[in-house]
Amino acid sequence: MRNLPVSGARLWDSLMEYARIGGTPKGGCNRQTLTDLDAEARHLLARQAAAAGATLSVDRLGNMVLTRPGRDPARKPVAIGSHLDTQPTGGKFDGVLGVLAGLEILRALHEAGVQTEAPVALINWTNEEGARFSPPMMGSGAAMGIFPESEVLAKTDSTGAVFGAELSRIGWAGKADPAALQDLGAYFELHIEQGPVLEREGLDLGIVTHALAQHWFEVTVTGEDAHGGSAMAGRKDALMAAAECALMIERAALACGARATIGRMTLHPDSRNVVPGRVWFSLDTRHDHEDQLAALAATMRAEAAGISARRGVAIAIEDFWISPATPFDPALVGHLEAAARTRGVRSKKMPTAIGHDAVYVARRVPAVMLFCPCHGGISHNEAESITPAWAEAGLVVLADAVVAAAGVSRD
Amino acid sequence: MRNLPVSGARLWDSLMEYARIGGTPKGGCNRQTLTDLDAEARHLLARQAAAAGATLSVDRLGNMVLTRPGRDPARKPVAIGSHLDTQPTGGKFDGVLGVLAGLEILRALHEAGVQTEAPVALINWTNEEGARFSPPMMGSGAAMGIFPESEVLAKTDSTGAVFGAELSRIGWAGKADPAALQDLGAYFELHIEQGPVLEREGLDLGIVTHALAQHWFEVTVTGEDAHGGSAMAGRKDALMAAAECALMIERAALACGARATIGRMTLHPDSRNVVPGRVWFSLDTRHDHEDQLAALAATMRAEAAGISARRGVAIAIEDFWISPATPFDPALVGHLEAAARTRGVRSKKMPTAIGHDAVYVARRVPAVMLFCPCHGGISHNEAESITPAWAEAGLVVLADAVVAAAGVSRD
Repeated sequence: MRNLPVSGARLWDSLMEYARIGGTPKGGCNRQTLTDLDAEARHLLARQAAAAGATLSVDRLGNMVLTRPGRDPARKPVAIGSHLDTQPTGGKFDGVLGVLAGLEILRALHEAGVQTEAPVALINWTNEEGARFSPPMMGSGAAMGIFPESEVLAKTDSTGAVFGAELSRIGWAGKADPAALQDLGAYFELHIEQGPVLEREGLDLGIVTHALAQHWFEVTVTGEDAHGGSAMAGRKDALMAAAECALMIERAALACGARATIGRMTLHPDSRNVVPGRVWFSLDTRHDHEDQLAALAATMRAEAAGISARRGVAIAIEDFWISPATPFDPALVGHLEAAARTRGVRSKKMPTAIGHDAVYVARRVPAVMLFCPCHGGISHNEAESITPAWAEAGLVVLADAVVAAAGVSRD
Repeated sequence: MRNLPVSGARLWDSLMEYARIGGTPKGGCNRQTLTDLDAEARHLLARQAAAAGATLSVDRLGNMVLTRPGRDPARKPVAIGSHLDTQPTGGKFDGVLGVLAGLEILRALHEAGVQTEAPVALINWTNEEGARFSPPMMGSGAAMGIFPESEVLAKTDSTGAVFGAELSRIGWAGKADPAALQDLGAYFELHIEQGPVLEREGLDLGIVTHALAQHWFEVTVTGEDAHGGSAMAGRKDALMAAAECALMIERAALACGARATIGRMTLHPDSRNVVPGRVWFSLDTRHDHEDQLAALAATMRAEAAGISARRGVAIAIEDFWISPATPFDPALVGHLEAAARTRGVRSKKMPTAIGHDAVYVARRVPAVMLFCPCHGGISHNEAESITPAWAEAGLVVLADAVVAAAGVSRD
């Protein structure tokens, strides 16, 4: 079995169909997790997958698993997954593309009457976005044992609504054990890139080989408030020290091939004519290799000590969040590369610097991701857009790789 | 007449007496302008000055002028002034010291039966602090014609209360023309330093020779938002560009002897894992000399253009507020120096980098200031503190200089 006859046109129609559930006037989608709209999209997916011969299982976190049986009872399922929830001002493709590409593959297998060796499962993870209930990737994270199920069920949104209660309210609290998903045979996820690289390089697909290691910090520089009229000699200006830290961090990150972002900064007392006595900033660092990220942190701390001594300020650098580098499965990467070659899809191997359900899944299960280009790298935005040709390129490569992983006895 | 027998002890008692009007549990004072407490302090001052032979005139802005007549009808008044209003969490000395030192001098002149050639006037300016109604130094600024009286009367506080209406409500809207105060013969103002220099150098008095030129800016750096996972090459990180601007400004200010303060900064979109596409910051620059301050601005703009070109970001530097360098009157400085020498008060000549009523007055009238040390340079704070000895040192030098300026025919 090669070149499963999936339909790019039908995938595109599906994308537009789901986009209407929570569709916004600006052409985006607001279908936040555990809302009535989320339930509506879930019901539609369940109906459509059932029509393609899949059976539904729902776990205690609301993760939906739609399984098409395989021939060999000993084989573990080959899964395709992503998420149907969106940001409040989200687009039509982030997450949805991966789920609906999976649906299209179930439909094509069904229509072609293909019997795979392993079962093929489609997963819709609960609350990938983390917009309504934080943190993101809750369904996959708890299923993979990264954090406890009970913690997820007790999370509250900004109005005080509780995750577990909302899940029951919309009718999607199931009975299955989420941890059972740690026993998948393979996991594939097609997702929009959320970056500009593929479009800029004129490519139609990214084959994702690994997730970067991430180390997030909070930095507090403490100097001394002073009147803006005071002499500069003797000042302990926390802002100037923070500026020096920022440029030092940029230099150190560039030197070792890391990515460093200071996305938030606050000044105290925050007055035009007062030298800031305290500056706080967030720092997000990422690297392909954990050891180099650790070396960056060490360099940063050493250089900050120098700035601290020279300027007479205290600089406290505290860990905020750490995520290890996560390799994807080389065999699955190989399936994708082979499929892209066969289908003539222009692709490149690349890392993901962004968290995805696949990154948690990869800690327990052989997993891999595919990136679909998106215009201008824009996502988490109603203006998020892709072309039907890009979506189809991802679909066909995904389909072939899934079939290769699941195995088909006769062609 | 030398060494007018003023009483440091009585001045200190007065300071403690007024501190009770709006006194806070932490030992500070909350007596904001045009409140009932402000009115209470004004009535007390009027009664006490009347008892010392002064007559009250109140102008349309509520500025109080308490005048003790002189012998020579041709001589213009020699005035002592400051303010009785405080910050919401203000101290017991900022402003009040200058008014009550003037009251003590009126009392001493009265008790000693001294007849000065020129009248001696004590002024309590309305709304120096600018905490309730912005900007600060409204009474003196409008009296000196820096901004229109009508504009001041129409100002509103955060609750929507109107300056003119509040002034009438507390019963302190007078009939006199504020512009008449442009015809003073001399103006003296004793104020706490609000800086750490005098205490640090073990001095008891600052003789203020001039006010620094000030040029305040608003700077907006516009780059491009990007995900924290994006590669660093190709980023247009507005925060890193702003950090480079900050250090460039610090270097340029140090090189020319200016003072530069970035007191406020905001990042957009202000998210931990998003490279800021836009950063805004305030910039306060000050220098003894206007031409050097202008040269600093030019250097800054030229260097910012370089940063802008190198980093592919736009940097807009906009004027926010400009205040010229203001020299105080050399003859009055001379009177203060002579008095300090005679009284054995350890003093130094210094500029004020902070706005005061005297700085506006000096644009129309020969004026000068004296600084009293304050602990740790702390002001606009309930913990603001001075010693009775420091207060007395300022008082005696002020008294002698006022008498010298006003003239006394016989000793």
